[in-house]
Amino acid sequence: MDTNQSLGCRELIVSLEDRSYPIWIGSGLLPRLSALLLERGISNGSPLLLVSDEQVAKHHLATVQQALQEGGYNTVVHIVPSGESSKSLTHYEACMTTAIEAGLDRKSTVLALGGGVVGDLAGFVAATYMRGVKFIQLPTTILAHDSSVGGKVAVNHALAKNMIGAFHQPEAVIFDLETLHTLPIREVRAGLAEMIKHGLIWDEAFSDWCLEHADDLVALDQAKLAYGIYMGCNVKAQVVSKDEREQNLRAILNLGHTIGHALEAVGQYGELLHGEAISIGMVGSAELAVLLGEDSQLVTYTRRILEAFGLPTSIPSHYDTDAILSAMMHDKKFSGGRTTFVIPTAVGQVDIRHDISIELVRSVVDKLKGESA
Amino acid sequence: MDTNQSLGCRELIVSLEDRSYPIWIGSGLLPRLSALLLERGISNGSPLLLVSDEQVAKHHLATVQQALQEGGYNTVVHIVPSGESSKSLTHYEACMTTAIEAGLDRKSTVLALGGGVVGDLAGFVAATYMRGVKFIQLPTTILAHDSSVGGKVAVNHALAKNMIGAFHQPEAVIFDLETLHTLPIREVRAGLAEMIKHGLIWDEAFSDWCLEHADDLVALDQAKLAYGIYMGCNVKAQVVSKDEREQNLRAILNLGHTIGHALEAVGQYGELLHGEAISIGMVGSAELAVLLGEDSQLVTYTRRILEAFGLPTSIPSHYDTDAILSAMMHDKKFSGGRTTFVIPTAVGQVDIRHDISIELVRSVVDKLKGESA
Repeated sequence: MDTNQSLGCRELIVSLEDRSYPIWIGSGLLPRLSALLLERGISNGSPLLLVSDEQVAKHHLATVQQALQEGGYNTVVHIVPSGESSKSLTHYEACMTTAIEAGLDRKSTVLALGGGVVGDLAGFVAATYMRGVKFIQLPTTILAHDSSVGGKVAVNHALAKNMIGAFHQPEAVIFDLETLHTLPIREVRAGLAEMIKHGLIWDEAFSDWCLEHADDLVALDQAKLAYGIYMGCNVKAQVVSKDEREQNLRAILNLGHTIGHALEAVGQYGELLHGEAISIGMVGSAELAVLLGEDSQLVTYTRRILEAFGLPTSIPSHYDTDAILSAMMHDKKFSGGRTTFVIPTAVGQVDIRHDISIELVRSVVDKLKGESA
Repeated sequence: MDTNQSLGCRELIVSLEDRSYPIWIGSGLLPRLSALLLERGISNGSPLLLVSDEQVAKHHLATVQQALQEGGYNTVVHIVPSGESSKSLTHYEACMTTAIEAGLDRKSTVLALGGGVVGDLAGFVAATYMRGVKFIQLPTTILAHDSSVGGKVAVNHALAKNMIGAFHQPEAVIFDLETLHTLPIREVRAGLAEMIKHGLIWDEAFSDWCLEHADDLVALDQAKLAYGIYMGCNVKAQVVSKDEREQNLRAILNLGHTIGHALEAVGQYGELLHGEAISIGMVGSAELAVLLGEDSQLVTYTRRILEAFGLPTSIPSHYDTDAILSAMMHDKKFSGGRTTFVIPTAVGQVDIRHDISIELVRSVVDKLKGESA
């Protein structure tokens, strides 16, 4: 059963022993936020810190504040600028200042209202404020269906993305689908890239379902979206439950990310959205697979599904190949002189390969650039 | 058995399931560092980050670097200024920059060569670099016998101490007693304050032993020191094993710390050493105990043992009482309008009390100030 009758929404439990938590997916959840927090034992005896960004706050802050006020919660709000640049130690320190000045204590909770950037920043604040307080995710983007599952929280260092962080599981993820209507169409498409990824690494039937319903998903059909997000979260939750601290299996979630992160870095985290970068990266992984002997249908299928969602499949021609490869060297997945790649072996199946030479990657990068000329 | 024959030193295992680790205590351990790292499975395949401070580096860096070089370890060194001001987000970020530039990866290890400040800073770097890498403590102060056990790592926020941190257990604590000979006498005395605390909260016989051997310990008698440090670590390890994340029992380790932290804050973390501040705080806790109905002998005994070590027992008269009480309000132990105090009930026994009114604390602070006039 994936429905919580008493709460009136889809429910998925991420199983992590004493750190297990529910993901609630439905429409109109934010106005009922206080009841949902109470369900998770969040008391109103200690102040809350709500972190959000300017764009999201404009649309949803009033709703959330009113809901919290009705529950008697004493909430301090910290708003950061929209965009990846807020995932910095400077903004992190500012959040800490707000929390201390508001008198947050060890029983306090940090709420993240926003997408992946806000979730990562607020999550790292929660992980490290007084050595760790409770954390609740209120995702407002499709992409956050991915980032809100798994407990990875982080800020960026000027030299590389997500270098400073922790594993900190939330008490709950509360996904109100109505917030998605305020998303720009480019972010809708980019967010769906991680959903597609979850099909490609784990579940051929779900992947085919995504391909078939691409138009409905891009148009934010609520029923289709609820199912797609539920299934995407479900794949991620299964993987994370089996490997919480990324020792092994969890690495398959990085399909498209080795090239993708490098493209984001070269674009100064501003030109390409994360989902767009990993879209290109997933094509790159399929191309690598073919060079390693897999069926060329893998590239055809990968391109077809990404194009159906209007996602990019080639590297902008002004991106310097050496800069891309150099950014890859700084990635966390680079260890002992070689880099790790997730390589598809069939739709819904991948291998983790640690033996990919930088020369092979270079040839794929050049090919993906050539196509955008 | 508390001796590791093959390594030729005292050994204490901190039992924390899959995070258990040894504390090795002996003379001349640093020159044998590579063998000890190998014993703990630290490979030389990934670079190490060694964090130390200017004072400690002057005395011990060459020894450590040579030992690491002999083991084939590729080590990058990051030196911070000596003193509490290095426990800042600014220095934390600088350590991260050094680590990234040196190419540290997920299999790398961070080593802390120094006292509590370096241990806390380097430990927080290890806890959060790429979401957590291995960590080894090489304490060079007596005080670090306390801070190196228990996995608490942190940096300070401008508004309050240790507000930003994590729990991150080391792979090993390697305590070379020969490093203690370079300590200024004031730091020797202050370091012994935590050893005394461990007797006062847990073990009357050990407390009496400390009182009896105060002069030997201050004179750094190696055999007495090895026993005292072993016993102090042992008390802390027992407490931490039972309560890793400070839910309950672990709070007894804070004897003297509620007042002590406030005194450090009012003195801008420069006037009083941590051990001096908690020495005064322990007298304050004994005074509170008597006000709450305990035997006045508790104050007499507490003063006698601290004075035997040449530690301060009264608050400098120029410290403002309101400033001390206000600093206490920002402490992590302040929750829901009251503060938590560890109150002695006998030598070697304490209670955790959550009902201590700020007025009662004020009367004790005034009394401790009056005595220094």
